[in-house]
Formats: sequence, structure tokens, C-alpha cells
Amino acid sequence: MIKAGIVGGTGYTGVELLRLLAGHPQVQLQAITSRSEAGVPVADMFPNLRGRVGLSFSAPDVEELARCDVVFYATPHGVAMRGAGELLQRGVKVIDLGADFRIKDIPTWEQWYGMAHTAPGLMAEAVYGLPEVNRAAISQARLVACPGCYPTAVQLGFMPLLEQGLVDKDHLIADAKSGVSGAGRKAGVGTLLCEASESMKAYAVPGHRHLPEIRQGLVQMAGAEVGLTFVPHLTPMIRGIHATLYATLKRDTDLQALYEQRYEAEPFVDVMPAGAHPETRSVRGANQCRIAVHRPGGGDTVVVLSVIDNLVKGAAGQAVQNMNILFGLNEGAGLETIALLP
Amino acid sequence: MIKAGIVGGTGYTGVELLRLLAGHPQVQLQAITSRSEAGVPVADMFPNLRGRVGLSFSAPDVEELARCDVVFYATPHGVAMRGAGELLQRGVKVIDLGADFRIKDIPTWEQWYGMAHTAPGLMAEAVYGLPEVNRAAISQARLVACPGCYPTAVQLGFMPLLEQGLVDKDHLIADAKSGVSGAGRKAGVGTLLCEASESMKAYAVPGHRHLPEIRQGLVQMAGAEVGLTFVPHLTPMIRGIHATLYATLKRDTDLQALYEQRYEAEPFVDVMPAGAHPETRSVRGANQCRIAVHRPGGGDTVVVLSVIDNLVKGAAGQAVQNMNILFGLNEGAGLETIALLP
Amino acid sequence: MIKAGIVGGTGYTGVELLRLLAGHPQVQLQAITSRSEAGVPVADMFPNLRGRVGLSFSAPDVEELARCDVVFYATPHGVAMRGAGELLQRGVKVIDLGADFRIKDIPTWEQWYGMAHTAPGLMAEAVYGLPEVNRAAISQARLVACPGCYPTAVQLGFMPLLEQGLVDKDHLIADAKSGVSGAGRKAGVGTLLCEASESMKAYAVPGHRHLPEIRQGLVQMAGAEVGLTFVPHLTPMIRGIHATLYATLKRDTDLQALYEQRYEAEPFVDVMPAGAHPETRSVRGANQCRIAVHRPGGGDTVVVLSVIDNLVKGAAGQAVQNMNILFGLNEGAGLETIALLP
Amino acid sequence: MIKAGIVGGTGYTGVELLRLLAGHPQVQLQAITSRSEAGVPVADMFPNLRGRVGLSFSAPDVEELARCDVVFYATPHGVAMRGAGELLQRGVKVIDLGADFRIKDIPTWEQWYGMAHTAPGLMAEAVYGLPEVNRAAISQARLVACPGCYPTAVQLGFMPLLEQGLVDKDHLIADAKSGVSGAGRKAGVGTLLCEASESMKAYAVPGHRHLPEIRQGLVQMAGAEVGLTFVPHLTPMIRGIHATLYATLKRDTDLQALYEQRYEAEPFVDVMPAGAHPETRSVRGANQCRIAVHRPGGGDTVVVLSVIDNLVKGAAGQAVQNMNILFGLNEGAGLETIALLP
Repeated sequence: MIKAGIVGGTGYTGVELLRLLAGHPQVQLQAITSRSEAGVPVADMFPNLRGRVGLSFSAPDVEELARCDVVFYATPHGVAMRGAGELLQRGVKVIDLGADFRIKDIPTWEQWYGMAHTAPGLMAEAVYGLPEVNRAAISQARLVACPGCYPTAVQLGFMPLLEQGLVDKDHLIADAKSGVSGAGRKAGVGTLLCEASESMKAYAVPGHRHLPEIRQGLVQMAGAEVGLTFVPHLTPMIRGIHATLYATLKRDTDLQALYEQRYEAEPFVDVMPAGAHPETRSVRGANQCRIAVHRPGGGDTVVVLSVIDNLVKGAAGQAVQNMNILFGLNEGAGLETIALLP
Repeated sequence: MIKAGIVGGTGYTGVELLRLLAGHPQVQLQAITSRSEAGVPVADMFPNLRGRVGLSFSAPDVEELARCDVVFYATPHGVAMRGAGELLQRGVKVIDLGADFRIKDIPTWEQWYGMAHTAPGLMAEAVYGLPEVNRAAISQARLVACPGCYPTAVQLGFMPLLEQGLVDKDHLIADAKSGVSGAGRKAGVGTLLCEASESMKAYAVPGHRHLPEIRQGLVQMAGAEVGLTFVPHLTPMIRGIHATLYATLKRDTDLQALYEQRYEAEPFVDVMPAGAHPETRSVRGANQCRIAVHRPGGGDTVVVLSVIDNLVKGAAGQAVQNMNILFGLNEGAGLETIALLP
Repeated sequence: MIKAGIVGGTGYTGVELLRLLAGHPQVQLQAITSRSEAGVPVADMFPNLRGRVGLSFSAPDVEELARCDVVFYATPHGVAMRGAGELLQRGVKVIDLGADFRIKDIPTWEQWYGMAHTAPGLMAEAVYGLPEVNRAAISQARLVACPGCYPTAVQLGFMPLLEQGLVDKDHLIADAKSGVSGAGRKAGVGTLLCEASESMKAYAVPGHRHLPEIRQGLVQMAGAEVGLTFVPHLTPMIRGIHATLYATLKRDTDLQALYEQRYEAEPFVDVMPAGAHPETRSVRGANQCRIAVHRPGGGDTVVVLSVIDNLVKGAAGQAVQNMNILFGLNEGAGLETIALLP
Repeated sequence: MIKAGIVGGTGYTGVELLRLLAGHPQVQLQAITSRSEAGVPVADMFPNLRGRVGLSFSAPDVEELARCDVVFYATPHGVAMRGAGELLQRGVKVIDLGADFRIKDIPTWEQWYGMAHTAPGLMAEAVYGLPEVNRAAISQARLVACPGCYPTAVQLGFMPLLEQGLVDKDHLIADAKSGVSGAGRKAGVGTLLCEASESMKAYAVPGHRHLPEIRQGLVQMAGAEVGLTFVPHLTPMIRGIHATLYATLKRDTDLQALYEQRYEAEPFVDVMPAGAHPETRSVRGANQCRIAVHRPGGGDTVVVLSVIDNLVKGAAGQAVQNMNILFGLNEGAGLETIALLP
């Protein structure tokens, strides 16, 4: 059994990670830390876990975490970069669900996250945990940086096109719609039910932290600079991201075959039949990305529809997938949940 | 492996049953019938099942069903009573998620369901599938009638009080709130998103089909006639039933201890700590009933809060629980799903 | 034109009051105060008011408020009782949408609101602003205490029964369901979309601040003590209260006629036809209470269904109705909005 | 008083039209027809209209309609083109909220609507009722074709850019998100609450009937052919359209000033301040389009955010606005409703 610890388990990625790890046949939950909730049984905060998770939150304690085989950081940015180093030195593998190790370029990271990065050496070492791109590297890593939710949906959607150089890479558009859980579990007026339900809005059009992360990934796929416009929208639902991607084709190709072949061996990317329109609910609670590719009217614009559950394939599920790869387990262990529909 | 068939799998209890059975370690899905959808892959209708359920709907065929060990009817009333007899004769166990065998008194059934009952003999034989009441009988049954969703939440909530004769049984009140999936997957104006969201209403106050079913169960618990007022409400959410129950205490007692003791050994009934208010989302997708008991102001009115997921403990999950009992399996097999929160 | 001021307009009752007053033909908005938002145009916070309300929030200033004919307090409890006195002395009429003057018995108020009451003399003077009960007194008042949202729905529902002494007044039950806007616009985890949508729960079963207020009103109607169990529920929608009321009939009567006659002359109480089930959306945005009365199975339990929009008839609309009465205007002025459906 | 009739008032555009006309100071509702509901009081179907609309549905009768000054068609396509001719001959003005007269090119119309057009002469005469484009022509018209909901939001968003020739007109992208009421009030599985809530999906990516209508409008603005990709999405809310528009700038310009000047005199188009993100709820129930224009990162991609209430500025409100222009009334008469927020 792999002994797992979680730092900062009071948010939505935390409770989702608990749900998945509690059902993982090869994992034993060892510790979950929260400074503010120390002593509180996890199941008091998250009653869905009653009878399934017996742990209480504990104050962060490096000795306790060092007894784990793997530690997940489900924390805001700035936490993992301070704690990961010591755990790695003591032989613990670290999987960060936050943003601390996602962007290789330190000045870019510092600009978007508004603080100095305290562990640039770890940034260099960290493997970006998108298995569909980096599976081999992940399997050898000590430190994995799980992608953000938008970046997961957008990169998986654009990847086949960019790898093959099929589109004008200077004018990529990602129009993305996210459920409100992407904003986390912190109290705030903007995400109250009365503010965010029965309404739709774009936000952060001038610039969003996931933009440089996505761009970094797309540049790697394209092997060249890319021009990307990324517009996120707050959508009145709890879970789900729907990314609608637009690009201009440079030459003709069989797009359906391209996508099917690219993702043929991927257990968690499902290319839908031609003409399909994936719904976010088809992946609710499941570690799955479903993609459809369209070319409306046979013109030169390709439209890709890519859906994930932001808390699963966009966060906790992908973290577990990375853990499975890291430890040589079946990649799908603990990730068999079928999406809850309706 | 138990070979399972489903008759009528195109509704919400059908897809939920498929989700649970697809993940059940001791079940093999053999056939799923639908006259209207014959030939259509199940996963085309329910994309959450893509990659997990390979079956297509088939036209109803008694020969095929007779090769199963158990057949579930996830059909409107009137179907199971016509088909169950032959299957039972051929040694197949039958679990009806519909209403055909729930009410022992045939004239009462006929009055509320508006048709003649064609299998009164089977009605007599059928075991009412509320394991917390009838576990022993279920284990010996050939034919199980799964309780309705409201009846499950209401009966489990009232049971300890009635068994002990603690309340005025002539003035029981059950104010129940149900998510819209309780109305099924059929097209109808009243359950459109634009009609049923952002609104709350009572319905069927003059009388609802679940009223005689609940009354039958309460009478059995009380060992005497009962007076019950049952008011269901359509609530703007997909899943969940919240039953708020009121009764007048006849004598003092430790209600918290009463409930905890009554359900101590029940794997799927969770008595919450004193003072708690269970949320329906704490059981979303899970085969669980969570109950809290209150006595506001120390007066003589007891208030019981009982929540279930209407599609799971109120339908498909309870059906699987009954199957496990019928076949001598671990009662929780295939029912480990933790509720999806948020 | 009546010059109106608002103290504390940054919450949901505040913006709703602004919406109604901006459309009132005989009102001129003079000032709206908020310490924290001073200087901010109201329409920057509430973009629905762009082009309709030109005011900015100003710091509270008694001189400015004293130039108004009427001042509305849309503040948490504890504010109006400190400011109302001086305004009244200077000839300004005061309408409190908060709780400061709702409960006549000072110790009871202090117990439920957890602070000392600083203006017991004003409490004695204040008129409880339920026009269907107190219209004449309101028309002569200087200070009006608008009822809470639950108390409005519950009192209007029970009134005809209690006035006529038709029911057992010792076992009244009010099972009430409220949209989330009843919790206000303050940041809090419990009312986040991800916590409060797709779920139903009771809260404050041991005791809610509206309980003593409702009981005070019912006692007045009954002319005697009453026993009331009040269970509020948080419902996944923005606006609306649905109160389901239960009482035991002591004698036979024509309930439909009783309700129709009692409310015949009331412009804002609509008795639905026999057998109806009012929906909260039928009053969304409108200053209306719709009521239906049932007697299921012809038994001795009466069920009353009473719906309002908590922000309109339960708060801002009722405040405007009171203002109209106070100033001798047409009672419906500015309250013609038809409910928004769907 | 203008005597108004409505053909087909049982859908969402019908009830919305009733709400607006019932509050219009210069309109008298004369008749509302529905073959299926003849004899039913309108307020029985739409209880928000109780006490405000006394009419009953009547069977369609040309004599009765001919006594009106104006007749609104709130019908599926194919109805208005059969009835409008006779009414026009008898001197009645006709405003069609449906699709029959929106697309000038008959073969294009017939291709997308799948039937023969029976009144090509009227198509030629009809004025496309987008007041911001055609105000003068509308004021002289007998027959007005109200734009579709998506076309209203998209055309108003693109107009300033195309009129000034500022963008690459061959690669316009309109990513549009609509509330479910856009699908109408007909029973259908896809728009059930349990199917459409808590989920997001694109639909009709290969082609949607609003595409040729939008393109026709954009061509007129650009004075040349345009290339448009239009992707509509079903969004889990009742009302609202959020159109996110993308185009490539050909030259530098002050976009904020451009939009502010273009819409300076328009009573129902509100250009938001620079940097703003309009929410659909800010126009819920109001005849308003709110627009913001962005240029992320100072690049050559312009992003326009355009929101309307699909049932108001996208349907019934725009119809009333057209009526006001047709009859020389104040253009805003009956359209003063402030959006309902929250």
C-alpha cells in the first residue's frame, strides 16, 4: 500500500482527492493537514466522507508527512514551493495540484502569480503532469506539477493540430466555460449562488494565469511561438469545463482520423464520433476528457470541443493518474468512477 | 458472475442501474431491452457509459432474459406484472424498480394506478424490498418490489418512532422535497429546465401514489392504522429527496439514542450527530440514507430530517442492495461509490 | 415627489428597493448610504441599474438623510435602532427592512438577536408593517417595522384559520423553503453556488430568529398562546419562499370561501382556485403572495401553500407598499411589476 | 390606445409579450389565439398574469384579428407567412417574432427551414426589425420581421467593426451561449431540467438556422461577403445570451470610443466601460443589450462581449420596440422594466 498525505485538504480539489484516494485499492490515507482545521474530523467538513474517511485534519508537520510515500499539495500557489524541497530530500514524492511548478520560466511565473519563486531549482526539475504528453518523464519524476483545469482541456484539444502543423498557430482561440467550483471553496461574493447562478459572463479577458501555462504547452507542441487568445467564462453549474477551440486550417486533412489516432492508446481521452457534441455532464466525477472535432461548412476553420470535469481530469483525478504512473501502478487504478448522469 | 438483465433501461433509474452494475465486481450485464431503442448502443444514449458498457438495447425477448440469473424491471407500472411470471417460472429472480408489486391490497393498487392488476398471485408473493425492514425475507425471495423513492426516505425516518409507539400515530406529517429526476426522463412541459428551475412548488397535495405505499409500511411498523399527511414538492435540483417529518411525542425519550441504536447495524442508514442538518448532496450518487432527529425547543413535536438520492437508495442502489441480499453477496458489493460533493 | 433615502443599500434588499423606487412615479431617490462603498456609483455595483439610477453611495450623513421625507433602513439588525430616533425627531418617516423593531417584547428581541436594544421606546411606537393586518395603524405611523420574509408568508397563510379559531393552535407546523437570497449578499461558504445549488437542507431547526416574530403575529391573530414548529430549508434557487403550513381542524368549514373572503379586498394576496399549487416563480419580482388551501383526503388536517418573493413581498416590495400607505398614495404605486416567468 | 392581437401565445415569447404589453400604457390587448388552448384563460396557463391579463385564448379567427391595429405572430416558422397577407390587406400591421420573413433570399430560407415559402412577395416587403440598423425603414413598414435572439446579440456586437472595415471579415467567430428558454416551451427530452442543468454543451456546430440570418446582416454592414463561424452553446440557465465575438484587427483604432460613439444615441444598447465584463443577469427581463470590447494583450485580436435577454431584446421586447417605432410612440414605452438582479 502506498502511504499518501495531503497538504491543504479543505478545498474542492482536496475533497475530490479524498474521494478518489479513499476508493483507491492501493492507497492508504496517512495524513491530511490544515492549519485552520486541525483536530476536526474530515467527515465533519465533508459529510459525503462519513464512514469512509476516518482521518482528522492535523497541523502541518513535516515529520508526519515524511512518513508518506507521496504527498499531494492541494494548496493555493506559494505553499508547495516552500515545502516540497524537504520532502523530496527525505525521499517522498510530491504531486502539486497547485500552480507552483507549472511554468518553467521563472520571471513569467513571478509576473502572473505576483510573488518571488523560492524554489527555482525544483521548477527546473518538476515534470508537467499531462500524461498524454509526458508519460515517460512522469514515470521517472520525483516532483510532478499537475496542469491547471483550463490548460488540460485546451491543450488536449489543440494537441493533434499543433503537433502536425496543420493550423495557423498565430491566431488560436480558446473560448472556455467553467463551472464555479474552479474558483475554489473560499468565501467570496462573486461565487455566491445568487451572483453566479442564472447568469453567464466572461472574466479576465485582459489576461488569466492559465494563459501563459497554456501557451507554454502549445509552444512545445508546435515547436514554435504561438498566438493564443484565451477567454474564460463563469458558467452557472458546479463542475465542468467546456473548451471551444478555433483555428484556421492551412491544409486539408481527415481531422476525425487524426484525433482518433492520436488518442487511440490514451485511456482517459475519448474522441467522440464525427458530428458529436460532448456534454460536460458526460464526464462529471470521471477522469475523462471527451473531444469532438468539427469543420463547419467544410471551410477552413476547425472547431474542437473538449470537455473535462475540472475537479477530476482537471485536478484531483489527473493527480491520481500521475501518482499511478509514478509508482508503476495500473494507470487507471482508483479512477474507474463512471460519470454521474443525470 | 451473476448474469443480469434489465427491462426498460432508457430512463433515469435505468442509466443509474447500468452505472452501478457496470462497476459491480460480481455482475455481468447480459441484456438490456427497449422496444423503441432496439439496436442503439446504450452508450450512444448515455455517453457517460462510453467505454464502460458495450451493450446495445435489444427488443424484449423472453428467451434472452431467461438466460439471466436476475432481471431488473426499470419500467413504468404495468409492465413487470405482465412479464415477471414467466421469468420466475423459468428460475430467474426478478427485482422490480417500478410500482407493480409494492402495495399488497389489490383494490388499493388498482385505484391509485388506474388499471387492473394482472398478477395478484405475484403481489402476494413479492417481498417489499426495504432491507432495513425485510432483510431476512428478501434473502429468500424470488420477486422483490423495490420501494418508491419517497417511501424509502419517509419510512426510514419514521420507523424508530412507530416501532416504539412513541408518537401520536393519527397525525403524522411528511413534507417531502424531491429533485426533478423523480419525474423520470420522459418529455413533458412541467419538468423542462425553464419550468422547474428557479422555482418551488408542492404538487399532488390531494393525493399521490406514494401515499398508500408509505401508509402500508407505517401501519406495519405501528401495528395499527395511522393517519398520514404527505405533501411532495418539486425542488429545483436533479437528484435528492429531503423528507421533513413531524409527529407529536406521547412520552419523553432519548431520541438520539433511539435512532442510533435502531440503525447501528445498518450499512446504508447513517444517523447524524445530534443537532445536525443533513444535506441531500451528501448522498448524491451514493446508496445512503442520512437521518437527523430534532425536538425543537424541547417541546412535544419531533422533527426528523431524512435524505436520500432518489435514484440510488430510492431506486437503483436499493435494487442492487436487494440483489446482493438475494444472492448472498456482500450487501455493499458495487455500492461503494462515495457521494459526489460538490 | 417624495424624497427617499436608503441606509445600507449594498445588499439584496437594497438593490431590490432601488429597482422598485427607481420605477416609482412619485418618488425621487435622494441618497443612498454605505460607509464601505462611499463614492462608488450605485450602478457600478449593480449593473442592472445602469442608466436608471445615477446616484453614488455616500457616507452616512444625518443632515443629508434629514432632508428626505422617508428613510429606508436596509441594514443588518442593530443599525436602525441607533439612527431612527434622530430622523423621526426631525420629521422624517422611517421604514426599517431589518429586524430592529419587529418584536415588541424587548427581552425576547435581545435573546434572539444577541445584543441590547438601544431604543425600547421606538419599539413600542413602531407599527408592524403587515398591511393585511395593520393597514390603518401603518397609515398613521412614523416608524414602520417591515416583517421578515418567512413571517410574511407564514402569517398570511395561517391568518384566516387563526382569526376564526378553526384549528388546534397548539400544534401549528410551518415547513418553509427559501431561496438563497434570503441569506443576503455577504460572502460566506454556505451560500456559495457550489455549496447551495443541487442540494436541499433544513437549517436552524432548534430555533430561528423568525420564530418569535411569527409566533407574536399568530398570537395576535388567535388571541391566545400558540404552539408553533417552524422548520426553514435552504432551497437551490435565488428568490422565493414556499411555506407549507399544517394544522388540525377543530370543525368543518368551507376553507376555500374562508380564504377568498378574508383576502377579497387585498391587492397583494391572491387566493388561488381550489386544488391549485402555487409556484414561487409565479411571484418572482412581484409584490404578491399567492395562497392555496387544501384538505387532503377530506381529513382533519388543513394544508396551506403560501408563496412570496422573499425580496419583494418579503422585503423591499412590502416596504414600498408601507410607504404608499404612510403617504396616502395609491397602495400599488410602483408595484405593478408582473412576475418574470420563465 | 393601440389594439393588439397575438397569434400563438402559449410559448415563452408569447408570455413575455403578454407581460410587456399588459404593462404598456398605450396598448390594449384585444385577442390572443391558440388553437389547442381555445377557451382557457391566459392566466391559468401563466399564473404570473393572474389579475393582470383577463383574456382567454381564442381559436384563430381572421375577423377578430382584423379588428386589431397590430398583430404579433409568436409562432413557429410557417405560420406567419400564411396569415400575414390577409391582415396586411385589411390594414393591420404585422410584427413577426418568428423566422418567416428574416432571410431575404428565398432559396436560402427554404433550405434552412425545410419548407417552401408561400409568401415571397411579403419577404421582399418585410423590414428586418433591428432598430439600430433599420429604424427609419421600420417606421414606414407594414410588416416587420423581428431578428432572432442570437442574431441580435451577434450583429450588435460586430456592427461597429464591420461598418468601419476594421477587421478581417473572412474569419469572424461568434461563440454564443444561450439559456434554455431559447429552445421554447415545447416538451422535449433535451431541455428537461435533468438533461440541461449542471451541464454545458455546444450544439448545431455543423450549421444553425441563425447562421444565414446573421451572415445576411453582417454582409450588409460590411458591404461585402463575410466568413463567419457560429457556435451556439446550451447553457444551464433560463434566460440570457452571451455572445463572445472574435475578429482580427486590420489596423489600430480606439475601440472603446468607436463603440461608444456608434451606440451613443441608442436607448437599448449600453456600451460598458473599458475593461468590463457584462453579465447576462444584468439584462434579465430588460430590453437591453450590454456590450464590452477588449483587445487582450494589445494584440490584433478583438474580443467583443455582447449580452441580451433572449426573450426580451432577443424577442418580445424588440417586438414591442418595433411596434413603438411603427406607431410613432416613444420608443421606450412599456420597456422601462429594470433587470431583475439577483
